[in-house]
Amino acid sequence: MSSQAAKRVLVVAGLGDGSGTGASTARLFAKNGYSIALVARGATHVQSLTEEINKSGGHAAAFPVSSYSHDDITAAWSAIHSTFPKPEYVVRVALFNVAHGVWKPFLEVTPEDVQDCLQTSVAAAFAFARGAILAFKDNDIEAYNGKRGALLFTGATASIRGNVITSAFAAGKFGTRALSHSLAKEFSKENIHVSHAIIDGGILTNRSKDKRDKEWMDNQDAHLNPESIASAYLYLVNQDRSAWTWELDLRPAHEKW
Amino acid sequence: MSSQAAKRVLVVAGLGDGSGTGASTARLFAKNGYSIALVARGATHVQSLTEEINKSGGHAAAFPVSSYSHDDITAAWSAIHSTFPKPEYVVRVALFNVAHGVWKPFLEVTPEDVQDCLQTSVAAAFAFARGAILAFKDNDIEAYNGKRGALLFTGATASIRGNVITSAFAAGKFGTRALSHSLAKEFSKENIHVSHAIIDGGILTNRSKDKRDKEWMDNQDAHLNPESIASAYLYLVNQDRSAWTWELDLRPAHEKW
Amino acid sequence: MSSQAAKRVLVVAGLGDGSGTGASTARLFAKNGYSIALVARGATHVQSLTEEINKSGGHAAAFPVSSYSHDDITAAWSAIHSTFPKPEYVVRVALFNVAHGVWKPFLEVTPEDVQDCLQTSVAAAFAFARGAILAFKDNDIEAYNGKRGALLFTGATASIRGNVITSAFAAGKFGTRALSHSLAKEFSKENIHVSHAIIDGGILTNRSKDKRDKEWMDNQDAHLNPESIASAYLYLVNQDRSAWTWELDLRPAHEKW
Amino acid sequence: MSSQAAKRVLVVAGLGDGSGTGASTARLFAKNGYSIALVARGATHVQSLTEEINKSGGHAAAFPVSSYSHDDITAAWSAIHSTFPKPEYVVRVALFNVAHGVWKPFLEVTPEDVQDCLQTSVAAAFAFARGAILAFKDNDIEAYNGKRGALLFTGATASIRGNVITSAFAAGKFGTRALSHSLAKEFSKENIHVSHAIIDGGILTNRSKDKRDKEWMDNQDAHLNPESIASAYLYLVNQDRSAWTWELDLRPAHEKW
Repeated sequence: MSSQAAKRVLVVAGLGDGSGTGASTARLFAKNGYSIALVARGATHVQSLTEEINKSGGHAAAFPVSSYSHDDITAAWSAIHSTFPKPEYVVRVALFNVAHGVWKPFLEVTPEDVQDCLQTSVAAAFAFARGAILAFKDNDIEAYNGKRGALLFTGATASIRGNVITSAFAAGKFGTRALSHSLAKEFSKENIHVSHAIIDGGILTNRSKDKRDKEWMDNQDAHLNPESIASAYLYLVNQDRSAWTWELDLRPAHEKW
Repeated sequence: MSSQAAKRVLVVAGLGDGSGTGASTARLFAKNGYSIALVARGATHVQSLTEEINKSGGHAAAFPVSSYSHDDITAAWSAIHSTFPKPEYVVRVALFNVAHGVWKPFLEVTPEDVQDCLQTSVAAAFAFARGAILAFKDNDIEAYNGKRGALLFTGATASIRGNVITSAFAAGKFGTRALSHSLAKEFSKENIHVSHAIIDGGILTNRSKDKRDKEWMDNQDAHLNPESIASAYLYLVNQDRSAWTWELDLRPAHEKW
Repeated sequence: MSSQAAKRVLVVAGLGDGSGTGASTARLFAKNGYSIALVARGATHVQSLTEEINKSGGHAAAFPVSSYSHDDITAAWSAIHSTFPKPEYVVRVALFNVAHGVWKPFLEVTPEDVQDCLQTSVAAAFAFARGAILAFKDNDIEAYNGKRGALLFTGATASIRGNVITSAFAAGKFGTRALSHSLAKEFSKENIHVSHAIIDGGILTNRSKDKRDKEWMDNQDAHLNPESIASAYLYLVNQDRSAWTWELDLRPAHEKW
Repeated sequence: MSSQAAKRVLVVAGLGDGSGTGASTARLFAKNGYSIALVARGATHVQSLTEEINKSGGHAAAFPVSSYSHDDITAAWSAIHSTFPKPEYVVRVALFNVAHGVWKPFLEVTPEDVQDCLQTSVAAAFAFARGAILAFKDNDIEAYNGKRGALLFTGATASIRGNVITSAFAAGKFGTRALSHSLAKEFSKENIHVSHAIIDGGILTNRSKDKRDKEWMDNQDAHLNPESIASAYLYLVNQDRSAWTWELDLRPAHEKW
């Protein structure tokens, strides 16, 4: 079986409440023929999205983790390779979408807040990226886009700017961005595409629906739809080797910035 | 005739030798149903690309200019509106792709070099952007992407970094970028999408083929294909209002940066 | 006469109304033993500051220009060299402090506004920098700081960010910054120090006193004092070759950014 | 006793081998009348620098820590306040100069490397900054510079750029920078000055002398002298409230960048 005929796999880490960027990306890639490996805390969300995709004619498998520790993430990668073995499958895309938000004045930030942000946004990103890079290095180069694989990171406004209540969150998100920058420079010569998206606005998820007013939810110019972010990710993956992007910003039309 | 049925128009300013980004963007948008208005110096290139697109089943019109002065560009916009009148047509996309490169040690840069870079990269960009914004402000908002129009700028490495032989070129390209940043902030609230692409590498054009060696030309990882840049532009235009991009970089897989 | 005994000269281009950054820098460097060459439009301001410095025991000479054209600036440099000839004098510091502000919504910006911003912030900067670099290249390296000379540029918030009413101003200021970046990279190896200061806030000048309210003027945390900017410039000049700065920001304590 | 007569205290965290930036800053501030609190791992270096300063007519006290954990740093701050009690003393300056460098290809980076970088560059920075901010908030505003206190961070090239062997180091240093950005924005309105220096080159320390060749050591244009960095820190502290700097770069004259 040639690798051309192999089934492409997308690995998503981080699903939030199952209604945001990670879930939308999983759905969109499933519709585009990818098998989906879902890695996240919160087995319920992981399981229900897996079932949803499988019922819709897609192909997904759940890899719930109890934490985003190096060991748990590494174990998830092993399980993914067992579930989606070569040469039938080939992992082509990995999305690191894990987030732990802390929005507090600096003096209220606890050492635990700092640890949580660093573990979630940076240490987990290193562990996940390691699994992705190791998977991609073994791949052949795809004909259509000239890549062995694509590793995507979801960033935020706080990836490029600190602010009065984002010290801990930004410290983590800057770290993710640094990692993506280093990886992009180190692995592009092996035709591994690393990309970082700066989500510069509020995303419409079930969680944000609880917190925001109806006007914001109804205003198509005011919030990011996770489906639109997923489209950006699909575009990035499809970019060919001659003109690919490390970083792009995504924001709603009426966002002030 | 409703505006939904109106024919979309792309206006491209800057075609180089007819083998680069501007030309590829014109061809790609023509294939995607756009009518094309070509604005450039060098009537020969403008005319031959116009004919090529029309022969291929597309619809293009030539608007050669003798200079990129405010007056010539403004006149070109008037002619475009006459050739592509509402409500049959609606100008939806404008690409400013004009470039004048100067690569010299600083002490060899002449006042004329500086003027050429400023006129071409900045003053012409202001004139072109004015035509585009005025055209877009009158448009309705398209259903599929939530925009009145999209204004794209082709940038370069020199848009974000000076260097030892790029003082004049970078001064102009930084200026274009500043304009695109200001416009993005001012007009996003009117659903006009302004985007700036940083082309961070060498583009394979007829001109670059004359200057570079065969190895570079044949190496798909080493140069940017103008078709791939055009694809990025089509993607940017198609981004919907909820998640659009001001700036993205585009570079070949093996570019060092 | 050894160059150690030569009198150091500061050349300042741009004096505004004689109460801002350029004037304060001239005064401070005069107190620190520099002879001062004042280049600006508005012969009255140039003359009165010259007299003030000379009456205070300093040594200044006026080089009023009718415009910031390449020719006028080049002529000013010639006159400066005649007035302050080697080996008695040696031009060690040059400050480009010329500014032409335009704050208008984009559609109100005229082609003349664009030209004025580009000529003032970019073309004049190239001409002035040329004079400075040519002067410095002939200098010996000073023992105390390891430099042949220092070329400073006054930047602004608009040097790094476009905004809704700064399209023309920012286009020029981005251009100045690009120039300073290129020069810093090209001439540092010849021990010429190029530096760019981002003035991120309102400066207390006679002009700003007319426009702002008394509360702003009296609030020491709200505005930049030109004397403090001058101190920053003196510090930059005194930085030694082992640790010098290309870019720094300067803002009042209570500035929001 | 009025606070004007109180003795100013500088707290330095991070001394390396006692021959670098932290030590030079301690010496320079001691000469300028500050009492010095030295916080670092490696009791030997802390003790010997303390003795050196005290023998030279300065006033220093040693606060060795066994780790840069939150608890150890917090305990050090308590000890500092006991040793330098108000109103005789007032902590005016705090320098976070702690560094843990890892330079490895990404696939050789261990989870421990990542943890070390995050703990040292980010978690320790949060703990140290907390102590500094709490100390400063109680201070009066000094007359000469309009500040309650100044908090400085030593950054590096890796603070703003990832690269092929700096993934772990950059992840930490980006995090420090994010913290400094957030703090600068949150506490400037309380007249607390937060600043971040990007050291963009190799510093001449005993350690670097062991690794580098004699040519590099002897070339005054090629390396940063820690004394020059210390001078920059003293300048930043002395900047007055009307024009202070968040970020500046420092590099040797002949550094390529």
